[in-house]
Amino acid sequence: MGELIRTEISKIPYLHIFGRTGRAKQPLPLFFNGSGIEVNVTGSELWIEIDTDCDNMEVWVACEINGALISRQMVLPGRQKICLFRSQEPTEAKVVRFYRELQATSENETTYLTVESLLSDGEFLKTDDYPLKLEFIGDSITSGEGTYGSLEDTVWVSMYMSASVNYATMVSKELHADYQLFSQGGWGVYCGWDNDMRHNIPAYYEKVCALTLCKKNIDLGAHEDYDFAYQPDVIVVNLGTNDNTAFDQPEFTDPVTGMVHKQHRNADGTYDVDDIAAVKKAVFDFITMLRKHHPASHIVWCYGMLGYALTLPITEAINDYRNKTGDNNVAFLNLPNTTLEECGSHMHPGYKSHKKAARVLVDYIKQVTGINI
Amino acid sequence: MGELIRTEISKIPYLHIFGRTGRAKQPLPLFFNGSGIEVNVTGSELWIEIDTDCDNMEVWVACEINGALISRQMVLPGRQKICLFRSQEPTEAKVVRFYRELQATSENETTYLTVESLLSDGEFLKTDDYPLKLEFIGDSITSGEGTYGSLEDTVWVSMYMSASVNYATMVSKELHADYQLFSQGGWGVYCGWDNDMRHNIPAYYEKVCALTLCKKNIDLGAHEDYDFAYQPDVIVVNLGTNDNTAFDQPEFTDPVTGMVHKQHRNADGTYDVDDIAAVKKAVFDFITMLRKHHPASHIVWCYGMLGYALTLPITEAINDYRNKTGDNNVAFLNLPNTTLEECGSHMHPGYKSHKKAARVLVDYIKQVTGINI
Amino acid sequence: MGELIRTEISKIPYLHIFGRTGRAKQPLPLFFNGSGIEVNVTGSELWIEIDTDCDNMEVWVACEINGALISRQMVLPGRQKICLFRSQEPTEAKVVRFYRELQATSENETTYLTVESLLSDGEFLKTDDYPLKLEFIGDSITSGEGTYGSLEDTVWVSMYMSASVNYATMVSKELHADYQLFSQGGWGVYCGWDNDMRHNIPAYYEKVCALTLCKKNIDLGAHEDYDFAYQPDVIVVNLGTNDNTAFDQPEFTDPVTGMVHKQHRNADGTYDVDDIAAVKKAVFDFITMLRKHHPASHIVWCYGMLGYALTLPITEAINDYRNKTGDNNVAFLNLPNTTLEECGSHMHPGYKSHKKAARVLVDYIKQVTGINI
Amino acid sequence: MGELIRTEISKIPYLHIFGRTGRAKQPLPLFFNGSGIEVNVTGSELWIEIDTDCDNMEVWVACEINGALISRQMVLPGRQKICLFRSQEPTEAKVVRFYRELQATSENETTYLTVESLLSDGEFLKTDDYPLKLEFIGDSITSGEGTYGSLEDTVWVSMYMSASVNYATMVSKELHADYQLFSQGGWGVYCGWDNDMRHNIPAYYEKVCALTLCKKNIDLGAHEDYDFAYQPDVIVVNLGTNDNTAFDQPEFTDPVTGMVHKQHRNADGTYDVDDIAAVKKAVFDFITMLRKHHPASHIVWCYGMLGYALTLPITEAINDYRNKTGDNNVAFLNLPNTTLEECGSHMHPGYKSHKKAARVLVDYIKQVTGINI
Repeated sequence: MGELIRTEISKIPYLHIFGRTGRAKQPLPLFFNGSGIEVNVTGSELWIEIDTDCDNMEVWVACEINGALISRQMVLPGRQKICLFRSQEPTEAKVVRFYRELQATSENETTYLTVESLLSDGEFLKTDDYPLKLEFIGDSITSGEGTYGSLEDTVWVSMYMSASVNYATMVSKELHADYQLFSQGGWGVYCGWDNDMRHNIPAYYEKVCALTLCKKNIDLGAHEDYDFAYQPDVIVVNLGTNDNTAFDQPEFTDPVTGMVHKQHRNADGTYDVDDIAAVKKAVFDFITMLRKHHPASHIVWCYGMLGYALTLPITEAINDYRNKTGDNNVAFLNLPNTTLEECGSHMHPGYKSHKKAARVLVDYIKQVTGINI
Repeated sequence: MGELIRTEISKIPYLHIFGRTGRAKQPLPLFFNGSGIEVNVTGSELWIEIDTDCDNMEVWVACEINGALISRQMVLPGRQKICLFRSQEPTEAKVVRFYRELQATSENETTYLTVESLLSDGEFLKTDDYPLKLEFIGDSITSGEGTYGSLEDTVWVSMYMSASVNYATMVSKELHADYQLFSQGGWGVYCGWDNDMRHNIPAYYEKVCALTLCKKNIDLGAHEDYDFAYQPDVIVVNLGTNDNTAFDQPEFTDPVTGMVHKQHRNADGTYDVDDIAAVKKAVFDFITMLRKHHPASHIVWCYGMLGYALTLPITEAINDYRNKTGDNNVAFLNLPNTTLEECGSHMHPGYKSHKKAARVLVDYIKQVTGINI
Repeated sequence: MGELIRTEISKIPYLHIFGRTGRAKQPLPLFFNGSGIEVNVTGSELWIEIDTDCDNMEVWVACEINGALISRQMVLPGRQKICLFRSQEPTEAKVVRFYRELQATSENETTYLTVESLLSDGEFLKTDDYPLKLEFIGDSITSGEGTYGSLEDTVWVSMYMSASVNYATMVSKELHADYQLFSQGGWGVYCGWDNDMRHNIPAYYEKVCALTLCKKNIDLGAHEDYDFAYQPDVIVVNLGTNDNTAFDQPEFTDPVTGMVHKQHRNADGTYDVDDIAAVKKAVFDFITMLRKHHPASHIVWCYGMLGYALTLPITEAINDYRNKTGDNNVAFLNLPNTTLEECGSHMHPGYKSHKKAARVLVDYIKQVTGINI
Repeated sequence: MGELIRTEISKIPYLHIFGRTGRAKQPLPLFFNGSGIEVNVTGSELWIEIDTDCDNMEVWVACEINGALISRQMVLPGRQKICLFRSQEPTEAKVVRFYRELQATSENETTYLTVESLLSDGEFLKTDDYPLKLEFIGDSITSGEGTYGSLEDTVWVSMYMSASVNYATMVSKELHADYQLFSQGGWGVYCGWDNDMRHNIPAYYEKVCALTLCKKNIDLGAHEDYDFAYQPDVIVVNLGTNDNTAFDQPEFTDPVTGMVHKQHRNADGTYDVDDIAAVKKAVFDFITMLRKHHPASHIVWCYGMLGYALTLPITEAINDYRNKTGDNNVAFLNLPNTTLEECGSHMHPGYKSHKKAARVLVDYIKQVTGINI
């Protein structure tokens, strides 16, 4: 082994960053699941220096080498070095991807993860280009809830969420694409699963990561306006599942404003016209927002992995948007529902369901982009 | 072997008939692919007496015993007996299903297939109940085009179509359901793939089988008004693929009226507003027609096995229908597109694609009907 | 369609014959399952003229076009023409393979199948070369028993046997190989499943097809000495399953000689030493016979698809043979056992089991032959 | 969270230990891959306290909760606590299995892993019974070499080995069995892949884990005579792959004795008679040794996952053993070879190959034990 040289993460040559960040790049905050770094490095050994804190929602991280998942582990509070590989052939370059498994943890004041530096006895070489750029916006499905754990596990804790077993990652890897995730379990395009009106993705989408309330994250730019420098070829929106659940949940009282909200069903089980109209408006408005920031991106609204109930209202909003704007670069696509046999933990899509969804999306994205992998 | 007794098909006890028929049941015409008969019969030997004629589109037939496909063959003109089993254990009952593989062959004046009688040395026992009732309405996909033959086969002939390898049959068998098919390759909900305005399914849907122009079929009730005594729990409409193709095909001149038709695209590739409006109106009107005849059926419009292009226009029509009528028992569902690896002959969905679609539909139908198989 | 020209099968240019035959080639007898013909032919239409007879064991036939199974059907007594395709594009060549599904039907005096002629309006072109040559020798597994029919079907009739769903055919097609089958359900290398000493494959192996007692077959060379002009690269012997069953069956009395035979187990369930020695000797002697006729063939004894009980005795015989002869071009290979989920009818290997075995064998044959498909 | 109580591992109620140990249980050394502990514990949080050291071969560990793999990570020198779960529902019991991924690291003087204690705020409940007991003895295949990493990874380092993706673990979990592993990459039943005569498993088998030369391990009983208190129902020996490789490698000079060894091939590629006889004798002797220590265990020698070359010599030795001893509770079974598509890293069996082997073995073990899972 040669001498390990510590290099601040912002000074690593050819560093590839996955996921949204603000202006701060030193240390590099990893706000979302799938947020991470990739290097192409020689040397016998590589370490990553991170800093992290948490309350009950601790961060999990994963590491891939040459495209294969090698490790997945919990990280607990403190500045620490993690060895990503050692005893390797020094002259051989290894592609190393290190990323966050845990979603952005909304309303959490403690949890953060930053990358401080890399320690290597090798040389950082040019990383792969990822000419195709993707973005995935979603809820618990896109946060990979249930992708780890067994069918009987029903507690809502960090360890069952991931980017490593996740249709978004599968699609991006199969298409050799760069990608970003923006997702939050339980949230909707209009309201949360429990009728909490604050829990809608669009209200947060224009900030880097306003989901987090952690001061360290905020200091590192989480609440900055996002610059949208990353312009995806395809934006996959996978929202609506929680908006549907809200219709079957009790009303929610906002603890701050005292305002009460509930989505209603009619006596025959159909949606209350005004309530569903609000969801449709939210879809319309969110597409408008997405388009504002991404003039050329193909936007596909995906839906179905946990039931098809909102298929028609969502399409109605999309059609309305297309008719009113003349913008036809917006589409809809059902992803297949998760069968019991494909479930992971707490009745969320497991590996088989994510794999199935990824196959459909890979084919779809090949069609609309014309790429041929 | 005991003595073979010939029984006219209309006099077979417990005969289960699959597929639409008119009033005539002797002989029993099999108009559509999937149309057939099922018996539960003891005896060592069973024959079926059929009559058939054809021009270039000969009929193919298939036979299943106890749910397993045993034979598939071409039948050529003439009244003939086909042995369905022999040398079996006389006291054991066998469930035998015999059905047509070939679609209804539109505009064909010659092709027909009738079942005249069964010859058996056994006893006809009670057949299974099929409490769930399904109907599938479609085009070449539902006619099973491409489900036989190799990838290189591109000629449009009977042998490549089937009910035996067909998502509609797979779904019905997995759900232990009765089913009917109404499909015609190349046809649309509004117009045919080649802009032929006559080639729309709704114009024919209210007759038993007006697709055929064969006198024998007509004599057997093909052009009668269909009585809609069969009330499916779920109607799967799988139309739109050819309506989309028409936008990329040259204009069509009606050979009788001289009228010219073409679906147009705008310069930017999007659909001409009026032309796509006509498709949407056709969807709206067809759902209206389906509802008229099936007050309680769940109608799900499936689309995607050969591309997703019309997803949004179709949903727009469905939403429009729901909003105008308040009828919410109508849904939309994308079926996954066919990848090259899943193709059968002449670039149509093959076995793997039909299997994939069937899995999605089986899950869907379980959800909406609440059945648990 | 052009005029159909009838050509005697022996006069077809570039005819490829699968399976053993004697000197007679007009008509061409198809003695074994998998025995058949292949042509590469243009024209719009192709018919095959066959002749067949049967008692309770009727012949089934299958037809593939361009490598895809198109039809499978029973054929009943009489000289008859079967249309293999029609209405095709006349200038396109189609590769057509027509073959027998039913095994050779031992001791049967009636059943035969001959190919008399082809009727075509096209031209017979050069067929594919099959540089790799395989031979499969076996019992019911290789006769495809159980590959058609449902799990509940337990009657021993023709319709449940096949070459079309058969590991031997799968292997040969995946390796683009010529192949021959020699198999008989219920038979062993030493004795039949029921202790019938006459039912051993080696006693019949040197005749073309002495299994059949049908005069028509005999007239066509079935009882001739086989010329072994076909020299396979690899001989797969899949015998032993019935030799093992015999140990658990009652004694058998030869109806002609009155001799009684039974394979015995010791009180602890192990094989009687003398009885298992007889099986081993039969393995040794059969390999000796195979080697005599095929000096250069790789011989692999495969075993396990219906249980592994005789693995060690068989290998002992092979090792003994290798040690005594110095002939090391003989090997042993377990094929994986059939699980319940992979069963076809009457508890024999079904499609999934044959597919699994084929994967193992394809890999094996690639290794020993060095071919790379 | 309640207060975390530290309990020495030897004092944990209902602790289930996987893998061989000597008399020392505090701390509990984990010598082999697959060696580990299982508890059934309530509480919100569980930590494991371990101690480890290493040179270039660091230890990797894995953790499963309720049967699902949750984490896999490298552990570096030092006494340390690893959190296995936190923030769980305190009253719900979780089955937690923690185990070593790295094989025993022969000749290594530094590497060890011990479990010191568990820290929990819950209660340790009764663990599952594992009525079926298995043992797996092997080489790199059983050490899981190549089960992590990508096809291009060819360096021999710890991270590519595992028990978590390993046919032995898959089989044991599917059969709900207790299991032990004894394996060493590169070793054979007679000699190592490089003709190193010291690298044979039998020479080490009677000690707990004499592979390791680490003083800490030795102090914890690694070099004790193993007590064979664990009596497996089935012993799977998966050896022979390296014995075959040795025939194609240069001679090896023992650095201590100066003795030179090489396994030779004849000019025609076959094995030298004396050299292969030595391998056969080693097989014979090892089975004798296994039987001595396990009077009632079914012993099955499995072979083939990296080529079938020694199938016949191994079976010859087994037959010889059975004939000379009359012990028929010894069998042979080919496991299917690994195809390129099933390879993991450095051309060793990957996930798909281990899965395939596991399916064959699960079926086999069900047959010989008569268990029905």
